[in-house]
Amino acid sequence: MTDIWQSAMDHAVALARKAGQVVRDAVGDAQKEAVMVKSSSIDLVTQTDQKVEKLIIQSVKEKFPTHCFIGEESVAAGEVCVLTDSPTWIIDPIDGTTNFVHTFPFVAISIGFSVNKQVEFGVVYSCLQDQMYTARRGKGAFCNGRPLRVSHEKDIRQAIIATEFGSNRDPGVVDKVFSSLKRVVSIPVHGVRGAGSAAINMCLVASGCVEAYYEIGIHVWDIAAGSLIVSEAGGVLMDVDGGLLDLMSRRVLAANNQSVAEHLAKEIDAFRVRRDDAAS
Amino acid sequence: MTDIWQSAMDHAVALARKAGQVVRDAVGDAQKEAVMVKSSSIDLVTQTDQKVEKLIIQSVKEKFPTHCFIGEESVAAGEVCVLTDSPTWIIDPIDGTTNFVHTFPFVAISIGFSVNKQVEFGVVYSCLQDQMYTARRGKGAFCNGRPLRVSHEKDIRQAIIATEFGSNRDPGVVDKVFSSLKRVVSIPVHGVRGAGSAAINMCLVASGCVEAYYEIGIHVWDIAAGSLIVSEAGGVLMDVDGGLLDLMSRRVLAANNQSVAEHLAKEIDAFRVRRDDAAS
Repeated sequence: MTDIWQSAMDHAVALARKAGQVVRDAVGDAQKEAVMVKSSSIDLVTQTDQKVEKLIIQSVKEKFPTHCFIGEESVAAGEVCVLTDSPTWIIDPIDGTTNFVHTFPFVAISIGFSVNKQVEFGVVYSCLQDQMYTARRGKGAFCNGRPLRVSHEKDIRQAIIATEFGSNRDPGVVDKVFSSLKRVVSIPVHGVRGAGSAAINMCLVASGCVEAYYEIGIHVWDIAAGSLIVSEAGGVLMDVDGGLLDLMSRRVLAANNQSVAEHLAKEIDAFRVRRDDAAS
Repeated sequence: MTDIWQSAMDHAVALARKAGQVVRDAVGDAQKEAVMVKSSSIDLVTQTDQKVEKLIIQSVKEKFPTHCFIGEESVAAGEVCVLTDSPTWIIDPIDGTTNFVHTFPFVAISIGFSVNKQVEFGVVYSCLQDQMYTARRGKGAFCNGRPLRVSHEKDIRQAIIATEFGSNRDPGVVDKVFSSLKRVVSIPVHGVRGAGSAAINMCLVASGCVEAYYEIGIHVWDIAAGSLIVSEAGGVLMDVDGGLLDLMSRRVLAANNQSVAEHLAKEIDAFRVRRDDAAS
């Protein structure tokens, strides 16, 4: 069993690198590209997002014809988004599309792979920085081959917390996002940062650059790969209310340890959003 | 006249590079360094900040013995902070000390140089990314030798805005910071980012990666160099209330153009903080 997933992982790394080259080549022209909108005027998608997802899915289909897919752009085009026990590739062709359009330097290709609803490997390629983050279940997390380890900090007042404002500008949602963030800032923490990419925020937790990351409104393709990278780097994952992480719930809290995670969860005004696997 | 400032600028670039090497060498050990606090538990300073400032000032004193200095750590140690007409080096040895302590990748050495209270050149070295931003008044802005140009975007709803929460956690201040930010997010803009370094935020404006940056609570050493880099890249500078920029007022708004700047200024709940040159 292990061997076949390792060969799938090797393929994912090669595809992420190839996709990264496509994104890098397009980044100078991104502002000239037709930028389309999805759920709102600030939920962006470009032709490069769609091109990269097709490139990845076509190549995987040839090599692993029985595998399933959940891809951000395929779901946007009407494909179902359900996590089954089958081997499933969970793909975000460009995590950080807004950054891509603005040439802000955090843009990632994220590829997670689950079997029996458990993530077996995760690949996040921060392509403008040429940083390849990888994790295989039980075998550690790496960046460009160097082992990753979360921060040792136990006191949240000495922590940097990553989060994002998301793309939902419904006033009720914005109110809740701001009230949580204000409580977090006032703990007080050392600082708040946001890379503009959920996958990269999770890699920053895994690298020890930030102690924790939380967000409500992300999707399974944003966090599937990153979640394994965090846990294999020694971090913890939970729901924003402190319960168990549910990859389809569109809520995530990743932290360096239980102490920071639990303190953070207490400050977050958790709210529910439509699940990724909700019946349409 | 021009020649002597050019030689000072060349010296500033060489010193920034040398200082950057000291910072890079220290970054792995930053968490082991004695981290001290200044105005609050989240206003950090390390021995590397102090060492780098001494290195820069000593070298400039040898080469330009009549010049004056405003340096973050010298002011913290009790030196006066007044901008005169004399040639003055305005130095932040590590802009982004919190990032430095956490190995978050945005850490800069900022060196501005003013004569008759006007910035003649600015050097910002983002040392972990090895990006050397420079500007000479009237001669353009560059990153590693490539000319910089601000974003062409005129519609703030298509913009990314950079800002920071700062290190003041006084509840009244936090309230104002959050009310402004909520209005900015709700314009709505494409996104909000913060590098954790004022100097680098200004370089991101100059590079066209973000359309604007604003902050209340920064100091003259955070923005002197960056302000020239923004204006030489075609951007505009003003006070957060839309008035003229005052380098000592601890408030700044930098943008790609007048349209974005004025719209942004209208959303900011401006408040006054103790000036850098206030009599002590």
